[in-house]
Amino acid sequence: MNPTIELLNAHRSIRKFTSEPVDQATVETLIKAGQAAATSSFIQACTVIQVSQGEKRNALAEMAGNQAYVAEAPLFLVFCADMKRHQLACSMHEAEMQSGYTEQFLTASLDCALFAQNITVAAESLGLGSVYIGGLRNRIADVAELLELPELVYPVFGLCLGKPDQNPEVKPRLPLSVVLKQDRYDDSQDEAVIRDYDETVREYYRTRTGGNKEMSWSEQISGMLVKEARPHMLPFLQSRGFIKR
Amino acid sequence: MNPTIELLNAHRSIRKFTSEPVDQATVETLIKAGQAAATSSFIQACTVIQVSQGEKRNALAEMAGNQAYVAEAPLFLVFCADMKRHQLACSMHEAEMQSGYTEQFLTASLDCALFAQNITVAAESLGLGSVYIGGLRNRIADVAELLELPELVYPVFGLCLGKPDQNPEVKPRLPLSVVLKQDRYDDSQDEAVIRDYDETVREYYRTRTGGNKEMSWSEQISGMLVKEARPHMLPFLQSRGFIKR
Repeated sequence: MNPTIELLNAHRSIRKFTSEPVDQATVETLIKAGQAAATSSFIQACTVIQVSQGEKRNALAEMAGNQAYVAEAPLFLVFCADMKRHQLACSMHEAEMQSGYTEQFLTASLDCALFAQNITVAAESLGLGSVYIGGLRNRIADVAELLELPELVYPVFGLCLGKPDQNPEVKPRLPLSVVLKQDRYDDSQDEAVIRDYDETVREYYRTRTGGNKEMSWSEQISGMLVKEARPHMLPFLQSRGFIKR
Repeated sequence: MNPTIELLNAHRSIRKFTSEPVDQATVETLIKAGQAAATSSFIQACTVIQVSQGEKRNALAEMAGNQAYVAEAPLFLVFCADMKRHQLACSMHEAEMQSGYTEQFLTASLDCALFAQNITVAAESLGLGSVYIGGLRNRIADVAELLELPELVYPVFGLCLGKPDQNPEVKPRLPLSVVLKQDRYDDSQDEAVIRDYDETVREYYRTRTGGNKEMSWSEQISGMLVKEARPHMLPFLQSRGFIKR
């Protein structure tokens, strides 16, 4: 172990921030650390939109399902998978880009995640906290319109950042044997292990909520997955030039 | 700046490793650091397959387009987006999972990227180097068969890890103004900035290859994107239960 690994292991989402602003030099430090992450075939397909507090931020908070911390966080970044600049690169060489491949959608989205995770780590090393906002995809077309995103650009998720004004516990993760397999996929032991883990999660919620919430991992997951999952995503993405083939 | 941010900024892909093994305690430390990353709605949808050196590893190296370092790296991990364990969670509660949504494909894939990026950072903090292997998607169906991946599980990318036996330069990234926008997407200045950056990249290759390769970023990107991009991906993913709606 070392301080970097301790930092990674201490991660928890922060949803309450002090009002202390994050200065622009720090924002640039964070973005540069994000850019330093690996990028698939050097495509560099992530564009970040920094959204100031005020009207637009309030609108995003509402679109994300009334998550107040989206409005309140000192810093809010929207990570966009961006293949438009590649279209530009092609046009600079009078080449015609073959767009719409699912592979391109995937690599651009992954680029954003690697980029954002570096930012999260860099931010935490500076004493800041963060929470990812997948809820931007609840009303993804409205978010895209608000931020004036053109075709071939879509908002993957947001990230709230700021100085933590809360100190939540680290959330227990699945046991190692469930997530790490040797040489082949073998989940024959997973159900038994997950049953034990379910009790760990139940205890975590019990402690954290003073007994008000008691829910196991499998319960929480099953409750979520019996419902549809943002069924507008595929038509939206296709309308923006992604996943067309 | 601090040591963690310096570490992030010093990242470059490592494709040549010493033969020094990575012991299993270190592997577990890395996986735990990966798990500590944020996970969308607590889905924890990443499963890692650690592939030993030998026959299977050689096969993967070939499938990835004859990348020798896939066979040679002391440690090789395949990151799989895994919704099968969620199907299990549902069945534990006699619930029927609504699968096949593009949203689920996206969140599971992003989970893998956040997980893997934490591993990359943790590894680098221990003096190891790494390179992502998107090339596993060249022959993704063969990879899935080799690793016995069931439906609702797909290999997103691989990661080679080991002690670096080379010391490449950090690759210059796009200027900040291209990747960071304020409040709205505005790329009106991008072309001019990319033209300057193209020269930076050209110089990087010139220096790195002793004058043998001179290629700008936009040239490289346009050369890549005039071709099809793994057109088998969508049918493969759909055959495994992803992106069906």
